[in-house]
Amino acid sequence: MSAIPKLAPRAGVVERRASILAGLAALVPPAALITAEDERRAYETDALTAYRQIPLAVVLPETTEEVSAVLAFLNREGVRVVARGAGTSLAGGALPTEDSVVVGVSKMNRILEVDTANRTIRVEAGVTNLAVSGAVSHLGFFYAPDPSSQLACTIAGNIAMNSGGAHCLKYGVTTNNVLGAKIVLMDGTVVEIGGKALDAAGLDWLGLVVGSEGQLGLVTEATLRILPLAEGARPVLMGFSSAEDAGACVAAIIGSGIIPVAIEYMDRPAIKVCEAFAHAGYPLDVEAMLIVEVEGSEAEIEDLLGRITAIAQDFRPQTIKVSRSEAESLAIWKGRKSAFGAMGRIADYMCMDGTIPTGQLPLVLRRIAEICAARGLEVANIFHAGDGNLHPLVLFNANEPGGLEKAEECGAEILKLCVEVGGCLTGEHGVGVEKRELMVHQYTPVDLAQQTRLKSAFDPAWLLNPNKVFPLEGRVLS
Amino acid sequence: MSAIPKLAPRAGVVERRASILAGLAALVPPAALITAEDERRAYETDALTAYRQIPLAVVLPETTEEVSAVLAFLNREGVRVVARGAGTSLAGGALPTEDSVVVGVSKMNRILEVDTANRTIRVEAGVTNLAVSGAVSHLGFFYAPDPSSQLACTIAGNIAMNSGGAHCLKYGVTTNNVLGAKIVLMDGTVVEIGGKALDAAGLDWLGLVVGSEGQLGLVTEATLRILPLAEGARPVLMGFSSAEDAGACVAAIIGSGIIPVAIEYMDRPAIKVCEAFAHAGYPLDVEAMLIVEVEGSEAEIEDLLGRITAIAQDFRPQTIKVSRSEAESLAIWKGRKSAFGAMGRIADYMCMDGTIPTGQLPLVLRRIAEICAARGLEVANIFHAGDGNLHPLVLFNANEPGGLEKAEECGAEILKLCVEVGGCLTGEHGVGVEKRELMVHQYTPVDLAQQTRLKSAFDPAWLLNPNKVFPLEGRVLS
Repeated sequence: MSAIPKLAPRAGVVERRASILAGLAALVPPAALITAEDERRAYETDALTAYRQIPLAVVLPETTEEVSAVLAFLNREGVRVVARGAGTSLAGGALPTEDSVVVGVSKMNRILEVDTANRTIRVEAGVTNLAVSGAVSHLGFFYAPDPSSQLACTIAGNIAMNSGGAHCLKYGVTTNNVLGAKIVLMDGTVVEIGGKALDAAGLDWLGLVVGSEGQLGLVTEATLRILPLAEGARPVLMGFSSAEDAGACVAAIIGSGIIPVAIEYMDRPAIKVCEAFAHAGYPLDVEAMLIVEVEGSEAEIEDLLGRITAIAQDFRPQTIKVSRSEAESLAIWKGRKSAFGAMGRIADYMCMDGTIPTGQLPLVLRRIAEICAARGLEVANIFHAGDGNLHPLVLFNANEPGGLEKAEECGAEILKLCVEVGGCLTGEHGVGVEKRELMVHQYTPVDLAQQTRLKSAFDPAWLLNPNKVFPLEGRVLS
Repeated sequence: MSAIPKLAPRAGVVERRASILAGLAALVPPAALITAEDERRAYETDALTAYRQIPLAVVLPETTEEVSAVLAFLNREGVRVVARGAGTSLAGGALPTEDSVVVGVSKMNRILEVDTANRTIRVEAGVTNLAVSGAVSHLGFFYAPDPSSQLACTIAGNIAMNSGGAHCLKYGVTTNNVLGAKIVLMDGTVVEIGGKALDAAGLDWLGLVVGSEGQLGLVTEATLRILPLAEGARPVLMGFSSAEDAGACVAAIIGSGIIPVAIEYMDRPAIKVCEAFAHAGYPLDVEAMLIVEVEGSEAEIEDLLGRITAIAQDFRPQTIKVSRSEAESLAIWKGRKSAFGAMGRIADYMCMDGTIPTGQLPLVLRRIAEICAARGLEVANIFHAGDGNLHPLVLFNANEPGGLEKAEECGAEILKLCVEVGGCLTGEHGVGVEKRELMVHQYTPVDLAQQTRLKSAFDPAWLLNPNKVFPLEGRVLS
């Protein structure tokens, strides 16, 4: 992605740094303002580690009022703002520019209200994803979206990226589980939208904010839907002799009307690496494996697993292994959840993220293999097959000249393929910096112009989270 | 609502009627253009029958291209447009103005694609709600939102109003079941958003369009989520000696983690009228009744009904009657679904529509009774209690001078109460003309200004569905 053009800094901002810092110092306590270069360096990148840029300054407000004051000031000064949760973005969604102030939500991490009668929880946006479930598990509830980074990532980041996770097939992704938000617009205005009650009158722009990648405002509080924990859950492992069979089996399960909690797909390279790392009991002689998890009462689980394994018979499974204990279930999931880390032990890789209509799975898997083979690269496929969210890992050697570039080419081809078959170039990681210039493959100029008008209705000077989401070429900038 | 101010006609439009009609005649076949006064009269009102206004003309296009050509022409001419589905709006959402052209979708009623592997159906927007389920029921699927008007109302109208229904507690309302749409903007631009795959890159404004009441564009096609039909479903009737007990029982069921398909609430006046009409076997000696329906396999249904009736014991139920056959279930639902018609036989009424956090149910029921009693009016409460969507029917005598006005006062007070307790002044009927001036109770000027900017980003001249949603006072009009 070395090819992605850089946005030019706003004239005079870097030069005015001293007076901008003085202005910020008047608005937040000393501990909330980070100016020293070695401390700012901690904010120079995110989980897409390919780019680095130290920001002008970092502010860590503790209240919505502080966020409002800081944004109003930076708006008047014409200074760009990059919102930051835990910095776990895989698409460069939290990357600073040299002329921007990072506003982090890490100090806004209080649970504000738990309300089981209305099945809601209200939290500050810096609360981590896992802490939300942690706050309600003793009451028999949980928060559904479960990104792999859930130990670290914040609700603010989840809302910005519309995060998903392995268990989102049944309960939806972030946008299906956010009921309300407190949002600070770039001019400092604080707006509350949604809440505990159904529906909104007039224009309901909560869904527009979810997934908007920090382009419209900063979310400081959120009201989230919590769900009852199921009595139990158990997965079945099913191995197939071809990607086509496994893909067709996914389509058949979905088409049958069963809604499992998760359907995860791993191909042979992924199975091999994960099994070596986690000793999960995965079959090593198959081309593709599905982990299908169902939940409910014991009787329900048995019934659903029976129906699923019966459907699988049509696709010549080589192995079917139903988990019979919690220990077995944990091992199966440990293998899947450690996939990215396990892969990192043996090769450099680029983790792609796209979605496709689930019915297109067999075709897409075949084409991904062709795209990578044509460039002499290996690929491991690990993804949320039930909702068509692919995570192909393109393996490459970073020490080989041109290695990264070849991987980037494969990645771009794979995402264009997703769009071609009716899918989308991001599933849960977002566009960020990484896929900014690919947006022209997803959208026509008319589509992009409409999105641009919406962005301008919130942030007329385009100060919020610069350099991301919208392709630079042809963008109308103030 | 006689007090609601009228929007002034746009200068010169009515006077230019002949040339506008000539322009439209060049764009659509003769049968698609309605100009004669007696034929236009069929479009003068909707299900909120209190207002009437014959439009300038009516156009019934058959294709997206025709809609695009018509809107582009009217945009150039500065003529307002009122989109119309089946005209079943209870909030005046389809009411014309004298200077507007009605664009109806009734001729765009083809099922375009059924895709069970991806659990989707693509339809033209004039297809009726019930026809969507009808097109997939033989495959074991259904479309979840089920407004009472589902025999007549269109998907276009459902999307405009974010329609709900008795069975939306488990599966969500329209916005949770629309995956994509083809939309014609006021300048004739055709934009496609969403589709069969999960997520969208960049700004996802599909959710903004759902519930936008025809303010942003005309939806001509939609991709909808279809769901597997459950094996079976059965309701239980539970009667209580007070509204507080019934309301607290709803909160306890929701808080326990069970998600029924429907929890419907009826009070004594409603029970009496519905039982007289439908002979549904409702208990006549109780103050409040709940219909709680669950679905699944026979074992699951038994288990869930057992848990629900056990929870109900804490609230001193007078009667508990579990449906034991399909005939009994049908009778129970017939009573509920005929409620509005049955009530219309004995009195004039205004059907209100608001939402509250479900935990506030007992308080809100008490205050509704007080509000109506203070004006000497009776009220019957029938509503979707599970998701807090209230439909109080305020009874009045239209022949008594001032009768309507008193009912209107009660209605406005009830909706303000909904907002006060953290709810919303519309649940599924929309704002339309009816609640336009109440929006200032829901939103601050800052909130409304932000909605106004969004409206302008789509429709800068404010030509789409005039006179609705946004309060006239202080509105910036071109």
